[in-house]
Amino acid sequence: MMGKLLKISIFGESHGEGVGLILEGFPAGIKVDHDLIRSNLARRAGGNDLFSTPRKESDDIRFVSGIFEGYTTGAPICILIPNENTRSGDYAQLKSRMRPNHSDYTAQAKYHGYNDYRGGGHFSGRLTTALVAGGALAIQYLSEQGIKVGGHIFNIGEAYDDPFPLNPDFSLINKDFPVLNTDAGEQMKEEINHARMNLGSVGGSVEVAVTGVPVGIGEPFFDSVESILSHWYFSIPAVKAVEFGLGMEFAESLGSEVSDSMYYEGDKVLTKTNNCGGICGGITNGMPIKAILTFKPTSSIAQKQQSVNLETKENITLEVKGRHDPCIVKRAVPVVESVTALALLDLYMEGKCR
Amino acid sequence: MMGKLLKISIFGESHGEGVGLILEGFPAGIKVDHDLIRSNLARRAGGNDLFSTPRKESDDIRFVSGIFEGYTTGAPICILIPNENTRSGDYAQLKSRMRPNHSDYTAQAKYHGYNDYRGGGHFSGRLTTALVAGGALAIQYLSEQGIKVGGHIFNIGEAYDDPFPLNPDFSLINKDFPVLNTDAGEQMKEEINHARMNLGSVGGSVEVAVTGVPVGIGEPFFDSVESILSHWYFSIPAVKAVEFGLGMEFAESLGSEVSDSMYYEGDKVLTKTNNCGGICGGITNGMPIKAILTFKPTSSIAQKQQSVNLETKENITLEVKGRHDPCIVKRAVPVVESVTALALLDLYMEGKCR
Amino acid sequence: MMGKLLKISIFGESHGEGVGLILEGFPAGIKVDHDLIRSNLARRAGGNDLFSTPRKESDDIRFVSGIFEGYTTGAPICILIPNENTRSGDYAQLKSRMRPNHSDYTAQAKYHGYNDYRGGGHFSGRLTTALVAGGALAIQYLSEQGIKVGGHIFNIGEAYDDPFPLNPDFSLINKDFPVLNTDAGEQMKEEINHARMNLGSVGGSVEVAVTGVPVGIGEPFFDSVESILSHWYFSIPAVKAVEFGLGMEFAESLGSEVSDSMYYEGDKVLTKTNNCGGICGGITNGMPIKAILTFKPTSSIAQKQQSVNLETKENITLEVKGRHDPCIVKRAVPVVESVTALALLDLYMEGKCR
Amino acid sequence: MMGKLLKISIFGESHGEGVGLILEGFPAGIKVDHDLIRSNLARRAGGNDLFSTPRKESDDIRFVSGIFEGYTTGAPICILIPNENTRSGDYAQLKSRMRPNHSDYTAQAKYHGYNDYRGGGHFSGRLTTALVAGGALAIQYLSEQGIKVGGHIFNIGEAYDDPFPLNPDFSLINKDFPVLNTDAGEQMKEEINHARMNLGSVGGSVEVAVTGVPVGIGEPFFDSVESILSHWYFSIPAVKAVEFGLGMEFAESLGSEVSDSMYYEGDKVLTKTNNCGGICGGITNGMPIKAILTFKPTSSIAQKQQSVNLETKENITLEVKGRHDPCIVKRAVPVVESVTALALLDLYMEGKCR
Repeated sequence: MMGKLLKISIFGESHGEGVGLILEGFPAGIKVDHDLIRSNLARRAGGNDLFSTPRKESDDIRFVSGIFEGYTTGAPICILIPNENTRSGDYAQLKSRMRPNHSDYTAQAKYHGYNDYRGGGHFSGRLTTALVAGGALAIQYLSEQGIKVGGHIFNIGEAYDDPFPLNPDFSLINKDFPVLNTDAGEQMKEEINHARMNLGSVGGSVEVAVTGVPVGIGEPFFDSVESILSHWYFSIPAVKAVEFGLGMEFAESLGSEVSDSMYYEGDKVLTKTNNCGGICGGITNGMPIKAILTFKPTSSIAQKQQSVNLETKENITLEVKGRHDPCIVKRAVPVVESVTALALLDLYMEGKCR
Repeated sequence: MMGKLLKISIFGESHGEGVGLILEGFPAGIKVDHDLIRSNLARRAGGNDLFSTPRKESDDIRFVSGIFEGYTTGAPICILIPNENTRSGDYAQLKSRMRPNHSDYTAQAKYHGYNDYRGGGHFSGRLTTALVAGGALAIQYLSEQGIKVGGHIFNIGEAYDDPFPLNPDFSLINKDFPVLNTDAGEQMKEEINHARMNLGSVGGSVEVAVTGVPVGIGEPFFDSVESILSHWYFSIPAVKAVEFGLGMEFAESLGSEVSDSMYYEGDKVLTKTNNCGGICGGITNGMPIKAILTFKPTSSIAQKQQSVNLETKENITLEVKGRHDPCIVKRAVPVVESVTALALLDLYMEGKCR
Repeated sequence: MMGKLLKISIFGESHGEGVGLILEGFPAGIKVDHDLIRSNLARRAGGNDLFSTPRKESDDIRFVSGIFEGYTTGAPICILIPNENTRSGDYAQLKSRMRPNHSDYTAQAKYHGYNDYRGGGHFSGRLTTALVAGGALAIQYLSEQGIKVGGHIFNIGEAYDDPFPLNPDFSLINKDFPVLNTDAGEQMKEEINHARMNLGSVGGSVEVAVTGVPVGIGEPFFDSVESILSHWYFSIPAVKAVEFGLGMEFAESLGSEVSDSMYYEGDKVLTKTNNCGGICGGITNGMPIKAILTFKPTSSIAQKQQSVNLETKENITLEVKGRHDPCIVKRAVPVVESVTALALLDLYMEGKCR
Repeated sequence: MMGKLLKISIFGESHGEGVGLILEGFPAGIKVDHDLIRSNLARRAGGNDLFSTPRKESDDIRFVSGIFEGYTTGAPICILIPNENTRSGDYAQLKSRMRPNHSDYTAQAKYHGYNDYRGGGHFSGRLTTALVAGGALAIQYLSEQGIKVGGHIFNIGEAYDDPFPLNPDFSLINKDFPVLNTDAGEQMKEEINHARMNLGSVGGSVEVAVTGVPVGIGEPFFDSVESILSHWYFSIPAVKAVEFGLGMEFAESLGSEVSDSMYYEGDKVLTKTNNCGGICGGITNGMPIKAILTFKPTSSIAQKQQSVNLETKENITLEVKGRHDPCIVKRAVPVVESVTALALLDLYMEGKCR
């Protein structure tokens, strides 16, 4: 469960009946934009091109509750995305044969062997489908308040996109392959192809930004915008680093170099640079929020890995069969946007209550 | 408020009566180790050397509740650390003159000018004193379970310490200046001196590790170990990036390069490398937890900065007077350790309940 | 959302796709007892006799997630109970014509008319089906620890059952009509018949007890057993009073009259009476927990009531058509048991963690 | 910890350094009304007359944080009420000798003997002082929105006050002895005197009402107004029953008898009676909220009681020495009002956020 005023519970398994979530506390009277949901789910779905998993997911979603005559009712919204096209046979061997850097071993240890191990079970990236479906509602709500969320691939392997400028224009993000610089995008595709040809995988990162953010969003200390966003971000499978604004670069910086000069533009206080990523003291300053999330390369690879067999208690060599992503970063972009919107909407609503 | 079974509420202001916290749900029957508390507070306190703020804080702490005859009672523990040696005059000008990259502007906007602006008020790093005091109890409890937490400065500016080895030995951390490599420590001091001489500040990072962690700590999805730890970490003022294991390096890695080979040592499953930082699928795998936190350089610097005066609504040039840290990274080490212990204790207790 | 370690989110509407809930944090490795679930759902279902609503609900339940090969996995359990046999036409007129003492008006006002008004929508007693399904898992878990939950109708109108004795034996509760004293049960049926004949409804109460409770369950102050149980109890539609132990009778009592004399039986501390209902200072003392919940008479009655039409803004006379319960108390018994088990399991797990 | 947007943590012990609480999330910019706080604390304090404990408490309160220049800052408010005039000697014998119907035994069992047993420790009614101090801020805030909270003694033993009328006027409550009917008050005093003369105690109840409540406060299901209020109410030591509106009387009522006829007065929907206590479907309908709380008689009485000695493991006869209340109901009135305001403010703020 996550959230304070907008509470999200997520459920489901990769090879079970389906995945889904419950959104408690979503405002009433919002007309559901099914096109946006479909479009974001399509961006997340694999199977569209060579750069993702060949598992096709049609991602039909069902609103089980909380929607009436096309509008949100204020009651909890249950979204259910049935699974289909699952091939459990691919994974059966994995009950005892652990994939390194995966939840196989930790989940089995934690749940004493009762976990649904098929395709990662509850720990599968498949669950992010639910976040995208629910996140679309948050994106839509925020958008009506003038708050826009956008993301692009920041890097894959050694291929780097341009960073967002001071004031990002999300319409400039390439539709087919979400980068700002299409040349960089071509290099990224090569990195992915290279990994796939070698039966391997490659990591990368996503930059996300939010524009139109009012000043004063975020709560002191534990509910700082960074704390809340990072809590969400690290829930996305494979995320291993989160940075805001300059992020890690701050570690090698002098205070004078990274000071965001403040100035008045009319009645509005702006900054000339945005090293702090739109968040000062944990609270938004009105400049765009900016964050970068690092995704580790998929651990399900067909290359040989050294591992263990929990049943026989032997060391083994593992080659993971099945349909896998050489790189999940492209598919992660709408997930990062969705999660950003859900987190921010909760803080936004809290900002209205006092 | 933070935590589920161990709930922490933090309060106080830099120049008010004091700072403190409440620990709800801390187990009964733990003998309070006042030496550990004092020692950790001393590590956090400024004024000891040239590398920190000249503001001396004696940090006398008072257990207002929850301790009886030297032991925790199971009732909420209120820790109060009275303020002393505050010079509010230093800050009075800051009511209207905003320090860039600081909470001055965001807090004033959020609270319509009612915030206590003196020394950053509730947004001051001073509040971390309370975390260190409370964290010492968590460190002590975990230590009795064989779980140890240790941190060191990883870098300051361009001076980098050695990273923790596969199995960290915290007794090797230098006592006076917390690094593994004392030569690196000398270079760091130079970076700090350089910043101080220029009336500026410099950023850096802290590496923290936890050893003796049982397999299976952490809860699925939103309560992954990374999610919970990062939520806490980003609550520490000035933290702008958090990485687990290889962290950002994953973005340029191939899956095959970063696979943590698993093997049996007796009945125990271990990994030959620890790129995932002891956390797979959000759950501990028994290897040491490892994280790196990046701290931005202090924004209170005496160098000229461009800013605004909220009262006159004019653009101004600001030189921040007062006692400031050229680098907070050294003092942050016990804070990071304390927060790690508090977060982990909560997850550890949850791991026992089912 | 309710609960700390065992988090429950409930969703659904009376005339939508279905109702359900998510159980987060339920322990892994529990074999699902489908017979218990079916049996409890049957006790809650209407349509079995003359004493309940003629709306028949087959209450097929689907475990969408969290169950694998018949056992709980530790991952969130989503239970979905599809709706069937809904006759929305019965309710269409109620969009503008408010039933007194019902959520019709408050929900419409709160949600600006976007609420699903059919059959009470999210405010329908239908949602308790989900609580019964999820509660069966909690009952089963507790039962394996020797903790038993049982309830009976305490009164309907002026017909009163015997109260539970000091040490209740739940096997003595009548199966068909849940009372201890079958004569009292006959009188209750007459009360219900009388109400039905008059196109009206009648209120009543349920007594619930828990045996085998360990000493020391419950947390101080806000998480007292009474606080947590009552929070759950008042979530059950139509509950308007909750008493523990002697309850309201305490108000006319002298301290000396109601003192529960304590004594040793072997090593065990017992009390000769149980006026405090097994809870002292908010914490269990090892004696049975006892509570009584009062249910108001159903507000959907066919008798004439004075009300308002929100559309025409006129005062009106209302006769509620449709299938209604003359008395919900009998059907409420398994709901009260289920909710008691869910609440107690959460506190029980918390008791194990420190 | 209690609350969602307004989070309250309570701490302290009867004979420790003091008691207090933290209010997180209280709105900024509210001028603290010290007279109201003092006046409400005085109403709660014992020692004023023959009808309460002779222990005098001056109840000086200290705002440790969250207040600046007389106004709330938006940061967490820590209120500390130091203890004084404690005579621990009175209680020393109680370490091993358990008072029946008290937390003595349950706390010792739960905390393995580490609890502060002096005067009930953390389980003492003394902690309600903190609720009254914090509640005064909530009362003040609500009052500025036109929402008023008032309570009176409803009964003590067999002496009953008049109930609140349909629209309560709190100015009619007697100041010295909070009843509506002063004759009833005189009878109550006799009940108390009678109990005191016999070295005993007597129970009673408090009726509380809230006027000026907007329609639509409260959240569906688990966060119904009744659920939230009762959670708070049962946290008050000695409360054993909570009723809303007609409460227990509903159990003997017919639906037609208790239907609250609705009608338009201008544009406003009102009801002719208020059996539902201003709450329908868990949500406020704009009529006054009404609740009755039953307090059990104090268990600390000087009369002989049968009990146990936990050290010697023997059955004993106990006569509790020390200063005790023959009846706590009068002192409970401001506590009930305070808690009502805190609970309601949280729900009120939530009502503004969507």
